[in-house]
Amino acid sequence: MFPTKKVQTMIGQMVQVEMKGDQHILEGTLVSADEYLNMHLSNTVEIIDGERAKSLGSVVLRGNNIIIINPVEN
Amino acid sequence: MFPTKKVQTMIGQMVQVEMKGDQHILEGTLVSADEYLNMHLSNTVEIIDGERAKSLGSVVLRGNNIIIINPVEN
Amino acid sequence: MFPTKKVQTMIGQMVQVEMKGDQHILEGTLVSADEYLNMHLSNTVEIIDGERAKSLGSVVLRGNNIIIINPVEN
Amino acid sequence: MFPTKKVQTMIGQMVQVEMKGDQHILEGTLVSADEYLNMHLSNTVEIIDGERAKSLGSVVLRGNNIIIINPVEN
Amino acid sequence: MFPTKKVQTMIGQMVQVEMKGDQHILEGTLVSADEYLNMHLSNTVEIIDGERAKSLGSVVLRGNNIIIINPVEN
Amino acid sequence: MFPTKKVQTMIGQMVQVEMKGDQHILEGTLVSADEYLNMHLSNTVEIIDGERAKSLGSVVLRGNNIIIINPVEN
Repeated sequence: MFPTKKVQTMIGQMVQVEMKGDQHILEGTLVSADEYLNMHLSNTVEIIDGERAKSLGSVVLRGNNIIIINPVEN
Repeated sequence: MFPTKKVQTMIGQMVQVEMKGDQHILEGTLVSADEYLNMHLSNTVEIIDGERAKSLGSVVLRGNNIIIINPVEN
Repeated sequence: MFPTKKVQTMIGQMVQVEMKGDQHILEGTLVSADEYLNMHLSNTVEIIDGERAKSLGSVVLRGNNIIIINPVEN
Repeated sequence: MFPTKKVQTMIGQMVQVEMKGDQHILEGTLVSADEYLNMHLSNTVEIIDGERAKSLGSVVLRGNNIIIINPVEN
Repeated sequence: MFPTKKVQTMIGQMVQVEMKGDQHILEGTLVSADEYLNMHLSNTVEIIDGERAKSLGSVVLRGNNIIIINPVEN
Repeated sequence: MFPTKKVQTMIGQMVQVEMKGDQHILEGTLVSADEYLNMHLSNTVEIIDGERAKSLGSVVLRGNNIIIINPVEN
């Protein structure tokens, strides 16, 4: 399965995303993703030192600034 | 709804944008956005330590340097 | 008006551009810009600590390394 | 053999990938890669100081944030 | 004149290029440039503290890592 | 000769490549390169402080993270 397809299978699930910039690790429910891996997350929280530190709600992430996408196991 | 569509729904509303570079957090009214997530904001202010620190007025942001787009709740 | 169109309206006017890299803030007259937001500026100066610090003359800026474009009010 | 073809020959094998960002070195089994070098790895671990430090499981990596791809010799 | 056209007019002339990465400022004769602003320079030298510090000869520069292109006045 | 063509002429030869990220300078034999300047090198070594410090063997480099490509003179 291609990487972008793999991301499509995560829709509706919790994902952890490492971004460039100041808010490195985000966790949220994947609402949608496109071919550039731009992503729309809901119920997003920023993870600092492994703790759910700050609620960001609904966010859009620019694909080229995403480093790693990781499904969160329940 | 695709991420770029989600951004279109924010037009006319206040958004917070985290950018790469020195002026990390900007807040302004979204005037327009294109498929690359280039954005035109009006009444833009830079947020430093959670404070509205500096008025930038009308700005254009290069999409690939946008990290997170966040609608501002009223 | 789309972001790239907005930039076209600034042609012939003074703009301030924040770039990635060592020369963060540049100010100059916008000669041209293309769809990637590559820009040609004339009479460019580098701004350091809010001062016009160094004259660079005619420069070409690579669009993907532009963070913010800001029209300069007279 | 073109670089993207070379990466295709590594499918099913262990690869080491240096990324931009905080988790520099990852090691995992290459499940798939596309023309942008977006990659899907399984059984991924983060390598810190040459040690397999942290298990990440199944991850998707954004191609433009990959610096070096290295097949792991057995 | 569009930015990429402006760069074409510099072919055969000395240019100064600010790059991302460790060798920030390069100076050389522009041999060719393409639409992505990938550039081929000959007789390239690295400039450190305004001094011609290190000879690099013939180099190819990746366009997306170029920040500023500056014609060198004689 | 266009920059990407220039790189094609280096195939089979030793090249030095400056990358973004932790392993800044690599040296190896250029096996192939594509239009994005993705590169496949064999017999790759990392250069630290001008010394051939670490053998990496066969590697694939993502073009957008390449800063400078330099043919190595014999």
